[in-house]
Amino acid sequence: MTIRFDQLGSAVLRTEYAVRGPVPTRAQQLEREGREIIFCNIGNPQAFEQKPLTYPRQVLALCQYPGLMTEAPGIFPEDVIATARAVLEGTRYGLGAYSDSTGVRFIREAVGAFIQERDGIETNAEAIYLTDGASKGVQGALRLLISGPQDGIMIPLPQYPLYSATVTLYEGQQVGYYLDEGHDWKLSREMLDESLKQATDSGIKVRAICVINPGNPTGAVLDCANISMVIDFAREHDLAILADEVYQENVYLQGDRFLSFAKVMVEKGERDVSLFSFHSCSKGFLGECGLRGGYMEVRNIPPDVLAQLTKLQSVALCANLTGQVATYCMVRPPKPGEPSYPLYAQERDSVLGELRKRAVLLAEGLNRIPGIQCNVVAGAMYAFPRITLPAGRTDLEYCMALLERTGICVVPGSGFGQLPGTAHFRTTILPPTDKIRVVVERLSAFHASYR
Amino acid sequence: MTIRFDQLGSAVLRTEYAVRGPVPTRAQQLEREGREIIFCNIGNPQAFEQKPLTYPRQVLALCQYPGLMTEAPGIFPEDVIATARAVLEGTRYGLGAYSDSTGVRFIREAVGAFIQERDGIETNAEAIYLTDGASKGVQGALRLLISGPQDGIMIPLPQYPLYSATVTLYEGQQVGYYLDEGHDWKLSREMLDESLKQATDSGIKVRAICVINPGNPTGAVLDCANISMVIDFAREHDLAILADEVYQENVYLQGDRFLSFAKVMVEKGERDVSLFSFHSCSKGFLGECGLRGGYMEVRNIPPDVLAQLTKLQSVALCANLTGQVATYCMVRPPKPGEPSYPLYAQERDSVLGELRKRAVLLAEGLNRIPGIQCNVVAGAMYAFPRITLPAGRTDLEYCMALLERTGICVVPGSGFGQLPGTAHFRTTILPPTDKIRVVVERLSAFHASYR
Repeated sequence: MTIRFDQLGSAVLRTEYAVRGPVPTRAQQLEREGREIIFCNIGNPQAFEQKPLTYPRQVLALCQYPGLMTEAPGIFPEDVIATARAVLEGTRYGLGAYSDSTGVRFIREAVGAFIQERDGIETNAEAIYLTDGASKGVQGALRLLISGPQDGIMIPLPQYPLYSATVTLYEGQQVGYYLDEGHDWKLSREMLDESLKQATDSGIKVRAICVINPGNPTGAVLDCANISMVIDFAREHDLAILADEVYQENVYLQGDRFLSFAKVMVEKGERDVSLFSFHSCSKGFLGECGLRGGYMEVRNIPPDVLAQLTKLQSVALCANLTGQVATYCMVRPPKPGEPSYPLYAQERDSVLGELRKRAVLLAEGLNRIPGIQCNVVAGAMYAFPRITLPAGRTDLEYCMALLERTGICVVPGSGFGQLPGTAHFRTTILPPTDKIRVVVERLSAFHASYR
Repeated sequence: MTIRFDQLGSAVLRTEYAVRGPVPTRAQQLEREGREIIFCNIGNPQAFEQKPLTYPRQVLALCQYPGLMTEAPGIFPEDVIATARAVLEGTRYGLGAYSDSTGVRFIREAVGAFIQERDGIETNAEAIYLTDGASKGVQGALRLLISGPQDGIMIPLPQYPLYSATVTLYEGQQVGYYLDEGHDWKLSREMLDESLKQATDSGIKVRAICVINPGNPTGAVLDCANISMVIDFAREHDLAILADEVYQENVYLQGDRFLSFAKVMVEKGERDVSLFSFHSCSKGFLGECGLRGGYMEVRNIPPDVLAQLTKLQSVALCANLTGQVATYCMVRPPKPGEPSYPLYAQERDSVLGELRKRAVLLAEGLNRIPGIQCNVVAGAMYAFPRITLPAGRTDLEYCMALLERTGICVVPGSGFGQLPGTAHFRTTILPPTDKIRVVVERLSAFHASYR
């Protein structure tokens, strides 16, 4: 007899990842049948006409086929060639050999230098792990932290469902803490205390708190006081912190700026809170989702625990080398004065400028629709508007109907978590300006007619 | 307080992956201190001077930076350019966007065509998953199969420790079945029956059997009767089969040939046994370990179960696109008559010819050492010789001493599993001829002196 559905484990069955859940699955099906779909369900910039930046792609092409250096002289700028040479030497065997389980040391050192320059703090290449995108790093950290079925992980609500899916799959307890929609999705000590107390009262041992900054799906950008408050909360309750900082380049409001948990932690002199920070090549202005590059930096974790993390990474050998080199290009971009710099800076600024415009355009468009309310999109790549639904309808039904009638694919708020009695959806801000207008128009007509 | 070792879960702590375990870890340390180390612990061909094949690397360079097609005309052969164009069109957005969770459909179809041509059987692109190397596919299948702590997975002894590590991490039961060293590591029905009976008697519900063909670390190549026997055994006991076929191109003995489980299963008309087959770009003659490309093909699995597998894949979004395209180049190589074919064929034959020579050279060399006995290396990339140890010594101690005294890094047999009372180590056959001679000489002197 073949495997049957009723033999599957409950952890597998309960795992849900809405970003690729029932609505996107139905959208793919419709697309295969010939419908034109606008995929707003996922932050996948290059699927929305965003061009890859020239510099990392030139470096990667040379690393793939170093013969180009001699066979096609004069094609690539000198600094691209120098970088490719440095990478080939630093990896020792190029892109085709397994690296250390934690990643190529030369690249981990470059990540360390990047953090050092960004934050003005000391780093250690031995505490840096190169990963297949940030997702794999998050999964590694959660695998380490969840030791049994009563271990809880605090997760923002709304959250990016990688967190809920992974905690479910690893059979831990998801402990949600609400973000305050009425105050631009800010995070408050009261909400954290309340959530922790409820969990502790029901016998859960809370092990860690996840923070996404800038927020996904909320777009909120944390300030120093907020981050400091989370660190104090973690210390008081013996929690580790998972800081998802993949949108650190995507900050749109004048006056806001990204601050890392690592920086605030070091400046506070905090040594008793374990920190896992994540970054990725998929977001920011590179948008290289398909290359699966990223890193995890850890702090305040004893060597015997780190050795276990490294062991877990080693079972599937190492992160893909192309992604590792893409990460190198992210953390060591061309500098002013280098031949590639002007084009690099122009491409970077153009992508970020476009995203900033779209964030405003989309939020304003949504707010013009009666029955839809959207906070300002301060960062990241998403809007998470609140919608008024007819009695008895769910946001899943709403999103499914939206898809069927308009071809727009968004993700129901229930996939991210939301206050009971409220309904939302998540959409990326990524469609080009003309498509954003189409999205807003169709949504407006759909929303008015939805009963 | 930071995370402490004593808070970690037992599944994490018990997980062991010897290929990157204590001996290789010590070797890395010695290398950093300036010692010259010969890393025979891992099948990492490009770390042993094996050059990447030109064709896939040219295709990948063009896909990374399509501007080369116009900026450097005449550099790459026409079929490389045509392939790169087809890939860019087939992926829709090139290498920088997430693909479907199961991988780019165009590449899954090419994998289907490859299996169809290799085996003369029908395939279905919806039953093919592109994965970051074969390891991630194996982990997905085991995640699906292990539903609780009494679920058992049959694993050959000796085995590749990905299997034991993953079963431990997912908290299933490892059910070992011995391969017969006295008969060239053949697999026998008696051994399977005995192992299953013991497990069942102790309350384990056996869910699947893993077979590695050609064998890792044994090198044994299964014939049709052997494969058919395993399929019958699986049907009689309601087991799924995991067929690890990553060494399918690495068959060295005249008269032997690789046969897939899928082919034998279809030819038997077997529809009641679920099959997961794995292949990879890391082995064979490509040796592209760092690109992390591979696929899993499944058969006889109901759609509702497949949907769960797809959901699990979706949580970390998709396999890296570079690896997916490398997989495309593996399954759709240049054909006779195409411009790239002559060089491709020459590079392929040179790699395989070298490996065939080294397999013989190493096994013969080992067998000349008194106290070491090695079966013929019929396939894959390893020798797994049996060693006679002084009373009271373990193979871990032996391998550690070998490393300290000679700089040769091999993996103790205990990391793979072996009959109680026997001792072995695993070494790759990958070092170039002159280095193999060095390895054999140093081993010989070391073994004679080891007390």
